[in-house]
Amino acid sequence: WELLTPQRARRLVEVLKRRTRYITVVLEAVDDGHNQAAVLRSADAFGVQEVSIVEGRASFSPSEGVSKGAHKWLTIRKHPDIHAAVRFLREQGYRIWASRLDDNAVPLEAVDLSQPAAFLFGNEHAGLSEEALALADGSFIVPMVGFVQSLNISVAAAITLYTVTRRAREVAGDRYPLTTEEQRAVLQTWLRT
Amino acid sequence: WELLTPQRARRLVEVLKRRTRYITVVLEAVDDGHNQAAVLRSADAFGVQEVSIVEGRASFSPSEGVSKGAHKWLTIRKHPDIHAAVRFLREQGYRIWASRLDDNAVPLEAVDLSQPAAFLFGNEHAGLSEEALALADGSFIVPMVGFVQSLNISVAAAITLYTVTRRAREVAGDRYPLTTEEQRAVLQTWLRT
Ligand SMILES: C[S@@+](CC[C@H](N)C(=O)[O-])C[C@H]1O[C@@H](n2cnc3c(N)ncnc32)[C@H](O)[C@@H]1O
Ligand SMILES: C[S@@+](CC[C@H](N)C(=O)[O-])C[C@H]1O[C@@H](n2cnc3c(N)ncnc32)[C@H](O)[C@@H]1O
Repeated sequence: WELLTPQRARRLVEVLKRRTRYITVVLEAVDDGHNQAAVLRSADAFGVQEVSIVEGRASFSPSEGVSKGAHKWLTIRKHPDIHAAVRFLREQGYRIWASRLDDNAVPLEAVDLSQPAAFLFGNEHAGLSEEALALADGSFIVPMVGFVQSLNISVAAAITLYTVTRRAREVAGDRYPLTTEEQRAVLQTWLRT
Repeated sequence: WELLTPQRARRLVEVLKRRTRYITVVLEAVDDGHNQAAVLRSADAFGVQEVSIVEGRASFSPSEGVSKGAHKWLTIRKHPDIHAAVRFLREQGYRIWASRLDDNAVPLEAVDLSQPAAFLFGNEHAGLSEEALALADGSFIVPMVGFVQSLNISVAAAITLYTVTRRAREVAGDRYPLTTEEQRAVLQTWLRT
């Protein structure tokens, strides 16, 4: 716990102003601790405050060397299963977008961001479950033009978060940043960090 | 070595048509085998045929489980030092863009792609060397709005390659794909794979 200097307080407020709940990310059975940590690092880097976790075979244990402390600044929620995760997010007003590696999927640049959006990423080997795909409102893909069949999950998540936060800032205008209440709540958790 | 079936030949040509030399990537002293492999996987996924390597403390040994065979489809050149790498690329007509984590750097979306462009990424701890920064024509950053000071290098490279290949296709028009001669040369290497 560090002393809250004026300089530090300014930094907290600066980052807080660029945080959003408009975009959120869901990891379903992403088992590898390095991938988990890399997603958290990207979420923080692109201002995505909230991350939802549905554990698979492995518990959620992001490797701290890789996350660079990002986990301390994010709101990470664990859900018992994908149904609970999606129910929770829908109640909050999110449209649910499932990553999908086929022609059913909409290219990332064309994903409709006129409403808050949650992006689902799946297991390193199996991808998202059938349930996750069925529960989603739509599916998206980061278009690929090579021989490899898929990107590393943390790379796919990073490209997605970078792109949709940039696009959503334009589309959502004043709906994009956190409300004053939300900022207050997040700041409270940061001051306890 | 597989039999070249008509289906396989069609796939090779399909990927070949979407390959480019207009964008290339340089890794300077990127030591971790997982990061090396992830960059190769992203290069293939986004059609970037050529990758230049300047080794650091560790030799270039991309982990094959992570690259998913991408190394077989790419033209990977090793250079003895950053001067040789930059000289080689400049002679080929590339403008050199160095990744840089400060205000000197141009945001990725504003990087000028009116000429072929080479993107330099540096060591996981130290970043690019002073020489690399001095040799470059300009510097760029993937804008970040959080607490973390940097992205994982393979994430930074993937976001960059995804973004600049998409943008360059628009800007460069018929200068973007490989020439017929270049396609022929690449196909030769693929048929020997
Ligand atoms: C290695 S991939 C899974 C591959 C698995 N064979 C499949 O078919 O889904 C792991 C996760 O990364 C994400 N992913 C990988 N490449 C992607 C792409 N091009 N677009 C969107 N998501 C991608 C997806 O969330 C996927 O569930
Ligand atoms: C972990 S960073 C190096 C951090 C090091 N402390 C520094 O100041 O450069 C490793 C490499 O990832 C790339 N990188 C990381 N974040 C980036 C960003 N936001 N924009 C551009 N490149 C980035 C750069 O190529 C960098 O050399």
